[in-house]
Amino acid sequence: MLPQPIAWAHGHSIRILDQTLLPREERYVDLVSVAQVADAIRELKVRGAPLIGIAAAMGVTLAARGVGATGLEAALRAADQLEATRPTAVNLAWAVARMRAEARRAVEGGFPLHQALLAEANAIWDEDRAMCERIGEAGLPLVPDGATVLTHCNAGVLATGGIGTALAPIYRAHRLGRAVQVVADETRPLLQGSRLTAWELSRAGVPTTVITDGMTASRLRRGDVTCVIVGADRIARNGDVANKIGTYAVALAARAHGVPFYVAAPRSTFDWQTVDGQSIPIEERRPDEVRQHGGVVTAAEAARVWNPAFDVTPADLIAGYITDAGLLQKGQLSRLAGV
Amino acid sequence: MLPQPIAWAHGHSIRILDQTLLPREERYVDLVSVAQVADAIRELKVRGAPLIGIAAAMGVTLAARGVGATGLEAALRAADQLEATRPTAVNLAWAVARMRAEARRAVEGGFPLHQALLAEANAIWDEDRAMCERIGEAGLPLVPDGATVLTHCNAGVLATGGIGTALAPIYRAHRLGRAVQVVADETRPLLQGSRLTAWELSRAGVPTTVITDGMTASRLRRGDVTCVIVGADRIARNGDVANKIGTYAVALAARAHGVPFYVAAPRSTFDWQTVDGQSIPIEERRPDEVRQHGGVVTAAEAARVWNPAFDVTPADLIAGYITDAGLLQKGQLSRLAGV
Repeated sequence: MLPQPIAWAHGHSIRILDQTLLPREERYVDLVSVAQVADAIRELKVRGAPLIGIAAAMGVTLAARGVGATGLEAALRAADQLEATRPTAVNLAWAVARMRAEARRAVEGGFPLHQALLAEANAIWDEDRAMCERIGEAGLPLVPDGATVLTHCNAGVLATGGIGTALAPIYRAHRLGRAVQVVADETRPLLQGSRLTAWELSRAGVPTTVITDGMTASRLRRGDVTCVIVGADRIARNGDVANKIGTYAVALAARAHGVPFYVAAPRSTFDWQTVDGQSIPIEERRPDEVRQHGGVVTAAEAARVWNPAFDVTPADLIAGYITDAGLLQKGQLSRLAGV
Repeated sequence: MLPQPIAWAHGHSIRILDQTLLPREERYVDLVSVAQVADAIRELKVRGAPLIGIAAAMGVTLAARGVGATGLEAALRAADQLEATRPTAVNLAWAVARMRAEARRAVEGGFPLHQALLAEANAIWDEDRAMCERIGEAGLPLVPDGATVLTHCNAGVLATGGIGTALAPIYRAHRLGRAVQVVADETRPLLQGSRLTAWELSRAGVPTTVITDGMTASRLRRGDVTCVIVGADRIARNGDVANKIGTYAVALAARAHGVPFYVAAPRSTFDWQTVDGQSIPIEERRPDEVRQHGGVVTAAEAARVWNPAFDVTPADLIAGYITDAGLLQKGQLSRLAGV
């Protein structure tokens, strides 16, 4: 059984699975205000580029309980507040922009604001679920019977409104009865690979092996990895990909061993305004994430810490993009721009 | 003030700094039996290729309290027991072989066994201290004023009988008043970089920044790292280097960004019997090291874990070898074989 990382509860609150507590504890929390949704995104209780887009869209509806201009103002303020929580993932800005446009359209057209926003948030969610399935379909040929896929961070059920992006082809292959295995990088500092990817895949019955990030190159050298599939937080116009810190090192190691490296992402992750990876803002997070884990000290106190949350993998290391519009090569990405 | 990871105590026990407790606690423990020394090595309370050689040599002396054949037999048994603790580091086998030879020589020559072994263990330690200084001297030109050196794992004071191997050039440069900074990979799973390297360098007043292993490639891309220097657990005849897991990924990233990658090691780390890296036995350690840290769960229970302690960096990624016989290129390594 796949877990459900987000849901409506009691009609007017948002129930999330608190991902910071996994795999120790599967605890669901109800968020009743925009501030609570913003905190949950900032603190990574809800994370994954597509899922924070959905969470933010749902969050905007919480604010839109007033009527007419009052409701609009509250909704737009909520949109700003939610958009500011995390700078790198473009899906967040994209989802919030859709909610803003829908709010204005509703008020201008004299439609009930809350109802319109609820419908738009649900549409974003539904579309994401469908996109995950299409990504799974597009990536299916890369995951034949007997395949071993290496992945970094978590771009699965816990990161999206559906069966994930990077993990979608794996879930599709598994559903078809193909024997598929996954090697999951633990993904320091927050261990989304060992805590989340390994948890959701094991739960779905997909055999998974956890390795530390420093083991990836050795693992790829062994020659038993069919391909690497990772998700993305933002893809620039030239095909450069911002994704969880450590992704770039995986791509370099994959290149060194001739293992094809794929990026799976819905169209909303492509940012046509951004020319290349160098222009993508990279969120730096609190040193404390590196200095301790679960309250246990992991670094000498006197040392400084550098903690960028993402890195950029240049397009020339990427064998293909597994999108909801099919498996594309770098030169074919401009096709998506018009959609 | 540099810490002292090993010392004689009360004339007949070995006092070690328990490195598993750092950086939280600086606790010294006295080992009074061969079994205790073997456990301390296996559990990484004492670690670092040169230091475990010294510890094992000191450990052999603990057994040699009998006279004549009795003492010899006990010493040889201790040597076997200590050699079996860890398979990858060649210094361990090398130090133990010296102790065996000395034990036989003493008994055959009618010299007091314990005294002879004590002298040999101290000689191994003294030679290591001197080798560290020579390695520091050989690497000094690589660490000019203003340099930033990236390192992986711990090959410093806590890994040797002196000022380290990889860190020796840094300590020498720092002593000369050069402004030197270090970027320390945290080195999962056991965090020797963030726990040990950052601790000893900070204590010595060398500014140190901790990053997770997945950040190394991004850090090297920034262009502010002068060179990479790492230690080694075993160097094959062709120049391939076995070192802490994750080293190979650092070497790949260094190559991608044109940052020179150096390996620092004493002659005892070179294994002329081993043709290349593929022939070096790689120790696999308990999955538990990846599954938890300090009692906090770090991976989903249902997932498997692969936990090799070392990897192999091929000679063609290595810019040079910083040895106690000078800074050598791959083609010059055979010079060391005769020594």
